[in-house]
Amino acid sequence: MTPNATQNSTNPLRVTVWNENRHEQTHPEVQKIYPDGIHNVIAKYLREQGSTVRTATFDEPEHGLTEEVLDQTDVLTWWGHMLHNDVQDQVVDRVQKYVLNGMGLIVLHSGHESKIFKRLMGTTCDLRWREAAETERLWVSDPGHPIVEGIGDYIELAEEEMYGEPFYIPTPDALVFISWFKGGEVFRSGCCYHRGRGKIFYFRPGHETYPTYYNPQVMRVIANGVQWAAPTTGATLSPERHRKVPLETIPAKK
Amino acid sequence: MTPNATQNSTNPLRVTVWNENRHEQTHPEVQKIYPDGIHNVIAKYLREQGSTVRTATFDEPEHGLTEEVLDQTDVLTWWGHMLHNDVQDQVVDRVQKYVLNGMGLIVLHSGHESKIFKRLMGTTCDLRWREAAETERLWVSDPGHPIVEGIGDYIELAEEEMYGEPFYIPTPDALVFISWFKGGEVFRSGCCYHRGRGKIFYFRPGHETYPTYYNPQVMRVIANGVQWAAPTTGATLSPERHRKVPLETIPAKK
Amino acid sequence: MTPNATQNSTNPLRVTVWNENRHEQTHPEVQKIYPDGIHNVIAKYLREQGSTVRTATFDEPEHGLTEEVLDQTDVLTWWGHMLHNDVQDQVVDRVQKYVLNGMGLIVLHSGHESKIFKRLMGTTCDLRWREAAETERLWVSDPGHPIVEGIGDYIELAEEEMYGEPFYIPTPDALVFISWFKGGEVFRSGCCYHRGRGKIFYFRPGHETYPTYYNPQVMRVIANGVQWAAPTTGATLSPERHRKVPLETIPAKK
Amino acid sequence: MTPNATQNSTNPLRVTVWNENRHEQTHPEVQKIYPDGIHNVIAKYLREQGSTVRTATFDEPEHGLTEEVLDQTDVLTWWGHMLHNDVQDQVVDRVQKYVLNGMGLIVLHSGHESKIFKRLMGTTCDLRWREAAETERLWVSDPGHPIVEGIGDYIELAEEEMYGEPFYIPTPDALVFISWFKGGEVFRSGCCYHRGRGKIFYFRPGHETYPTYYNPQVMRVIANGVQWAAPTTGATLSPERHRKVPLETIPAKK
Repeated sequence: MTPNATQNSTNPLRVTVWNENRHEQTHPEVQKIYPDGIHNVIAKYLREQGSTVRTATFDEPEHGLTEEVLDQTDVLTWWGHMLHNDVQDQVVDRVQKYVLNGMGLIVLHSGHESKIFKRLMGTTCDLRWREAAETERLWVSDPGHPIVEGIGDYIELAEEEMYGEPFYIPTPDALVFISWFKGGEVFRSGCCYHRGRGKIFYFRPGHETYPTYYNPQVMRVIANGVQWAAPTTGATLSPERHRKVPLETIPAKK
Repeated sequence: MTPNATQNSTNPLRVTVWNENRHEQTHPEVQKIYPDGIHNVIAKYLREQGSTVRTATFDEPEHGLTEEVLDQTDVLTWWGHMLHNDVQDQVVDRVQKYVLNGMGLIVLHSGHESKIFKRLMGTTCDLRWREAAETERLWVSDPGHPIVEGIGDYIELAEEEMYGEPFYIPTPDALVFISWFKGGEVFRSGCCYHRGRGKIFYFRPGHETYPTYYNPQVMRVIANGVQWAAPTTGATLSPERHRKVPLETIPAKK
Repeated sequence: MTPNATQNSTNPLRVTVWNENRHEQTHPEVQKIYPDGIHNVIAKYLREQGSTVRTATFDEPEHGLTEEVLDQTDVLTWWGHMLHNDVQDQVVDRVQKYVLNGMGLIVLHSGHESKIFKRLMGTTCDLRWREAAETERLWVSDPGHPIVEGIGDYIELAEEEMYGEPFYIPTPDALVFISWFKGGEVFRSGCCYHRGRGKIFYFRPGHETYPTYYNPQVMRVIANGVQWAAPTTGATLSPERHRKVPLETIPAKK
Repeated sequence: MTPNATQNSTNPLRVTVWNENRHEQTHPEVQKIYPDGIHNVIAKYLREQGSTVRTATFDEPEHGLTEEVLDQTDVLTWWGHMLHNDVQDQVVDRVQKYVLNGMGLIVLHSGHESKIFKRLMGTTCDLRWREAAETERLWVSDPGHPIVEGIGDYIELAEEEMYGEPFYIPTPDALVFISWFKGGEVFRSGCCYHRGRGKIFYFRPGHETYPTYYNPQVMRVIANGVQWAAPTTGATLSPERHRKVPLETIPAKK
């Protein structure tokens, strides 16, 4: 890592919305809800909020995440599910490097099992799940956090997939949402991390068979997350790792 | 704090079970469930598990928590509700000092608003609540933690008081249980902290109008918590705070 | 705590610089370095950086920290030493309440033993120390944190008081500086905390007998800390703590 | 991860001491200090403390870390340097799986750049360094932690390699040592983590050209670390990830 290759956020923020974009092509039920893909719904909202947004998908060369694209990205959002194992390791390496150098990362829903999230967490990121179109309530557990600005006591989604504890992640630096599910489970559904110079936000909702990304409160949280995860400037460190020092301060070797 | 006045745990552990013991005298409904007081139910279980247990209650001189008693206590458990504000500040100061020197503290249910818990947390420890005899499920969120040994996926209590987020506490060092309530709320119901040389475990269930402390799984968690919070030996530090150093290593004052 | 009484930061930020201001009146050596008091040196710098700054000192009624003043304060900075125990408890209660509702707090140097810092931490905040005019190097340990913006690998101070580990604090949410002292000690000298809706930053340097608050890098960190600790908006919660819920969702009491 | 495949610690603990064992064969200076390899010095000490110890080295098939070996390992210690990149990915995957299922891991000195440590941390684990045979003092920063039992204010090593901040790791769950170096640097040199069901302890000292692993205090810390990292039993979870629930509790899909 070049310590000073920090990405500084610009104004407006430059966001890249990544989507696997496979369910939308193969599942008629999903196609109906997201005819232009989940990425375009998210991108549209973030553009309306003032960000400069591009999209990238699995099928593009290098999954659309070239160095050139990442050099122009302040925050990357990630939605994937079916093709996690087919994402190229070289691209995962690259995204990890950019995050550790300061690029923000928003991991959505089934992205919990993506290579990039597991890579940054170091754990399995495993969980329990059930598809039963059941009610989810995301309770605000950290009311002063900027990611919950504009939200009330909770967000209620009439129908979502259930994710249940235990969620095999490192303890989050901040836990901003805890979900309640009608069927009887709970889940840490809004988790913030600092890794290297970068910030990572995992946000649970967004199963492809429900219109979750049209919910204005869900989108408000994603937009807040993008703002929160934007690169900060930080310190300007000297590049050398092998540190020299005036020799007189060091005792002679015996 | 005398750095070496660390309390070392003995074998068997010496536990003091503290109870306000007022509901049991004034509320017939509570009297019926806990005729000898909540403290005696907890004490009986811990004795059966092999600990040396004494009890102490609000009405005793110095609330039964004299220096002599605390000197012989490895872990203190705390249940209070009606009389939080009447607990003497001098006793709170004393308990805090012992905890920071290594004595374990298990805070139960409405003890979240006790002076001692708020003192050690530094926050309001406020929360939402509702008494509606509703089902609570305490999900294990940290399956490898010793406090959940012997527990399955969750503990289910048919009827309990509800506590809901946000719970105004510092981020726990470990979060071992998250509760689901039938009425729609969630709560961080098993929270571990390290403060000074001491360990603190907050455990939510135990409203006085329900027979929660007869539930073997709840009691197993309390017993596990006592083991987890037992004093450890740690380092043997020099007592002086004003640190001297060979003068030749310090540059002359300009 | 009224959940929605959150203080939102204004632009420019409104800062109150609090100083005990006693050494400056009683110690000629200190008077020479800070003839108008430490508070006026800090206030001048923050004004130059664009904040709206007022000062408050121990000798003013209510130590200058009335509700009216705190209502107009986004971030409070605190320097104290000789008179910690004489600060009125009622004022400490009030400052704590404002911090937990969102007001930022920057605790400087010997403020580690102030009532307000110990209150918010829950621990003794004790440490080792030595006055020997020795060199301190504050190393950046979290290079991406906004508090170290504009700083290089470290800040070097030719002469300072030494503070040494162990520092009896809760584990910081972020540790941004670790100090090296010529005489052989180390210290966690830049510690960030979230408590309630508020943010707290402890910053070590600033002994009254050295011109530390004229060091531009030290002042840059304090100014960065003020920006970091500024109130955020967060969620808009309903005020009621006793939570009602449609009764049909709750099972009848047996 | 099979949730119940938890490794439970036996008594005595079964420790596998892993060593790259290459410097000892190629550098006469190292050969002189560790003629039988670093692993055998560590193994000897741990045996004397009562553990059942085996060793494993890079050159063995599968680096000596077969499933059979790991099945019989409560805690694994890791020393490597020259051959980090040559460690087989399949073995790294395996060790990670065992750690997340409960096996303890002690990472020593230059092991900070091993594949397994970087895998579990998710960051670069990069740092600054200098070889100048300079004095290191490891200060106890968490005096109540069991890993520092038997240690005083600090451990002093007359000659060691320097490691300096920033150390690019996630914030440790507990920080038990902070190092001071004669040449002017500081370092977080004792770092504890919980990941999945496993515990990880990084301990800095141990450059191959110094007799650090003959220092009784260094060895005491390693032995304490082994005890601390031993597997715990935890909860007994149901194996299924796809969670069924009585259908009547779930609302019909619209």
